[in-house]
Amino acid sequence: MEVIMTIRNDAYSLKHVVTTQQFDTNALIRFIFPLADRMREAVKMGGNTLLAGQRMISWFEEPSTRTAASFAMSMAQLGGEVSFATDNASQFSSRAKGETIEDTFRILNGYHPNVIVSRFATAGDAAKASKISKVPIINAGDGNNQHPTQALLDLYTIQKKFERCNNLKIGMVGDLHNGRTVKSLAYLLGKFKKISLYFVSPLSLRIGDDIKIYLDKHGATWSEHEDLRDIADQLDVLYMTRIQRERGSMLTSAELEPGKFSINKPVLRLLPKEAIIMHPLPRLEEIPNYVDGDKRACYFQQAENGLYVRMALLTIILAPIHIPRLLNM
Amino acid sequence: MEVIMTIRNDAYSLKHVVTTQQFDTNALIRFIFPLADRMREAVKMGGNTLLAGQRMISWFEEPSTRTAASFAMSMAQLGGEVSFATDNASQFSSRAKGETIEDTFRILNGYHPNVIVSRFATAGDAAKASKISKVPIINAGDGNNQHPTQALLDLYTIQKKFERCNNLKIGMVGDLHNGRTVKSLAYLLGKFKKISLYFVSPLSLRIGDDIKIYLDKHGATWSEHEDLRDIADQLDVLYMTRIQRERGSMLTSAELEPGKFSINKPVLRLLPKEAIIMHPLPRLEEIPNYVDGDKRACYFQQAENGLYVRMALLTIILAPIHIPRLLNM
Amino acid sequence: MEVIMTIRNDAYSLKHVVTTQQFDTNALIRFIFPLADRMREAVKMGGNTLLAGQRMISWFEEPSTRTAASFAMSMAQLGGEVSFATDNASQFSSRAKGETIEDTFRILNGYHPNVIVSRFATAGDAAKASKISKVPIINAGDGNNQHPTQALLDLYTIQKKFERCNNLKIGMVGDLHNGRTVKSLAYLLGKFKKISLYFVSPLSLRIGDDIKIYLDKHGATWSEHEDLRDIADQLDVLYMTRIQRERGSMLTSAELEPGKFSINKPVLRLLPKEAIIMHPLPRLEEIPNYVDGDKRACYFQQAENGLYVRMALLTIILAPIHIPRLLNM
Repeated sequence: MEVIMTIRNDAYSLKHVVTTQQFDTNALIRFIFPLADRMREAVKMGGNTLLAGQRMISWFEEPSTRTAASFAMSMAQLGGEVSFATDNASQFSSRAKGETIEDTFRILNGYHPNVIVSRFATAGDAAKASKISKVPIINAGDGNNQHPTQALLDLYTIQKKFERCNNLKIGMVGDLHNGRTVKSLAYLLGKFKKISLYFVSPLSLRIGDDIKIYLDKHGATWSEHEDLRDIADQLDVLYMTRIQRERGSMLTSAELEPGKFSINKPVLRLLPKEAIIMHPLPRLEEIPNYVDGDKRACYFQQAENGLYVRMALLTIILAPIHIPRLLNM
Repeated sequence: MEVIMTIRNDAYSLKHVVTTQQFDTNALIRFIFPLADRMREAVKMGGNTLLAGQRMISWFEEPSTRTAASFAMSMAQLGGEVSFATDNASQFSSRAKGETIEDTFRILNGYHPNVIVSRFATAGDAAKASKISKVPIINAGDGNNQHPTQALLDLYTIQKKFERCNNLKIGMVGDLHNGRTVKSLAYLLGKFKKISLYFVSPLSLRIGDDIKIYLDKHGATWSEHEDLRDIADQLDVLYMTRIQRERGSMLTSAELEPGKFSINKPVLRLLPKEAIIMHPLPRLEEIPNYVDGDKRACYFQQAENGLYVRMALLTIILAPIHIPRLLNM
Repeated sequence: MEVIMTIRNDAYSLKHVVTTQQFDTNALIRFIFPLADRMREAVKMGGNTLLAGQRMISWFEEPSTRTAASFAMSMAQLGGEVSFATDNASQFSSRAKGETIEDTFRILNGYHPNVIVSRFATAGDAAKASKISKVPIINAGDGNNQHPTQALLDLYTIQKKFERCNNLKIGMVGDLHNGRTVKSLAYLLGKFKKISLYFVSPLSLRIGDDIKIYLDKHGATWSEHEDLRDIADQLDVLYMTRIQRERGSMLTSAELEPGKFSINKPVLRLLPKEAIIMHPLPRLEEIPNYVDGDKRACYFQQAENGLYVRMALLTIILAPIHIPRLLNM
């Protein structure tokens, strides 16, 4: 994979957003997160017009209403527009007739949008599309592979709370085998220092070896557990995920015990006072409603942060000329 | 239910539109309907820019293409934009995975729209969402419960024609048991004086007791009939509704006789010269095409009036500062 | 059919776009194609604002993602907006409940858009809708009948390459029986002089007699063939189309031989150096990927040309006052 984001002093260039790994710590800490802060301030004032006259195509091969909404609202807050959106392209469009992803993106390029945000049905298609697209592409998820903007908003949420991305103990709980979110975030955390990951999952849903190998290579610590209560008292971040119903039904009654892979009152008591509770949402039983009132709960803020991070990325891609001013460089 | 719309002299405030009942006669006659008149004039001139820079999310848990289009065009005529729209949220979004309506609206709030128009799959969800939403919500129908903007546009159509909402005889014909439209309009009419309602329906599709009790309490007169021809000569307003095909197939051949629950030429002869014929559309056999040429037919104007009423509501919610000028107050 | 486009000296008027036949050669050569050239230049400069404040409804009774995207981006490039879009109106909307196309368009008119682009499920519905619509309608395909903007962009592509629409030899290959595209283009080509058409298809998928009769009447030459290699060396334009999988499965193995109804290397060798290869896309096996590198391949440019032609049509319909200036008349 070519280097897609380049930063040198105050020169930066970002073409496509394809993977989590393409962002180095410098890009995150010096550009993306400070810009997200500026975006939060702009939204409070009613938005800005950095992308006035710019046109997004929102091309979702399968529906992901939440993600599509977040991108659309990011574009709107920046004064740009979603000129065309589809959320079912793989069912209805030419792709359903057998067209290659490359042909699809060649044609979308011909409509001259300024940026294409796309959810791809197939892992790896974001990379394929980015190879032939002259128009910037943002990967809004490709199959079970990557969801880089989700990982960025997760990390931004952590950074806002702790004012650091190093030296953190993060517990990840739930279906770690199938969760794209957890994988992408783990890849990103691996780039920082003194990171300890606690993977808490049923035996049948453990995290893949690829992540473990990656973490070892980057010097991050990790351990595996089968009960959240065993490690809750050590965490800075408790990152919960949903076990999908069809998979949940395969769990033993012992595995379904509250507190094991879900939050209950004992977990809340164990969890340090300064910790935060995250979740990519939607949440079900794994976070009971009464947790919402806990000061450590920040999953709704986390979803909101997606708006700011996506606004930051769109600005870097489409209006980089404004960055020095926005960041007082 | 808290008072959601407040009016005192020239001070008014409207947060959410949840039910028909929340509007009192003063709000309708002094603010909403005169504003709708101003909107009609603005549309003739090509629209206005009262809502420039304002962003709507159109969040339909199930499709209602007509209603969604009417709201979107209202926003566009006011210079605002629909920044994100979905018409199938209950099938594809996180709601399908079991998320509560409160969680969904907390997250939508985090995207910072100025207003959310929503069709809810479940009766009562509009009220639930409005309780937690800081962003104004407009209920575009919640299950079989309410469709307040439809009732408002219906009443506005009557008011435009008769220059009054009191002292009216209204015949409501068709499936009165399941029709949300008829229920909502009856609730609204009950607030006015000297209202007589004639409910004309097959025995199996009579209007519910809740409406009758409500009307009794408010001093409105009502009666039930099984043949439109029995009362057509007494009406100011003939409000037709469609009997859905699956229900229509359960009617006896006597009940299907033209003129009983549908318009035919004898009905047109009976109906007073100054009466009007309304229908929420789509219409089928209950209004044959030849009725379109009759001067009393106003169902297409009624649909168009939805544009003006929704523009008025959006202005009251999002740009109240302009109301005194618009109304010469 | 009334005359829908009128041109006299520098006065021109276009209300609806319903059929291919409504455009005469003068309209194409003097107005539409030169305007499309201006639009291409405008897009390079980032678009224009000829349609600022104008509102399109994109009303597709069935999905055609590619066509809907092309129209939406055309509107956006002109500074106008798609204020409401649906791509499944025949499944979800009132049409599914039995409403006539006339009623639907009466109601859409009441929402006061400036233009309605519509894909109709049923042949002939575009003409029906145009008869009652005061708002301009553009037919984006009606059943298996017409797809006039596709034919216009096809012919524009030919005109750009050869600087003429007369005196051309065009081979049309594939499923000529069911292809709306080929039919529409043949109707348009028939209006020009010295046109020779070579229809190359399996016996079971030959072009209809209506086209042959039309071409005879207009003095165009045509012939039928069962192997592309027999006539490839005589062509100016090789217009390929896809044989749909379900129909392809009925072909004999002899008919499926590469080069017969598909391009292979021998076909490329036979095809004259100055010829062009077109395809309405999506393409499958009938144009192998290695053809993309051939200088004669222009199917992606053809798709892009749709943007410019649709921008030209929208300008003629919605902002004709700008035409003299744009064309230096």
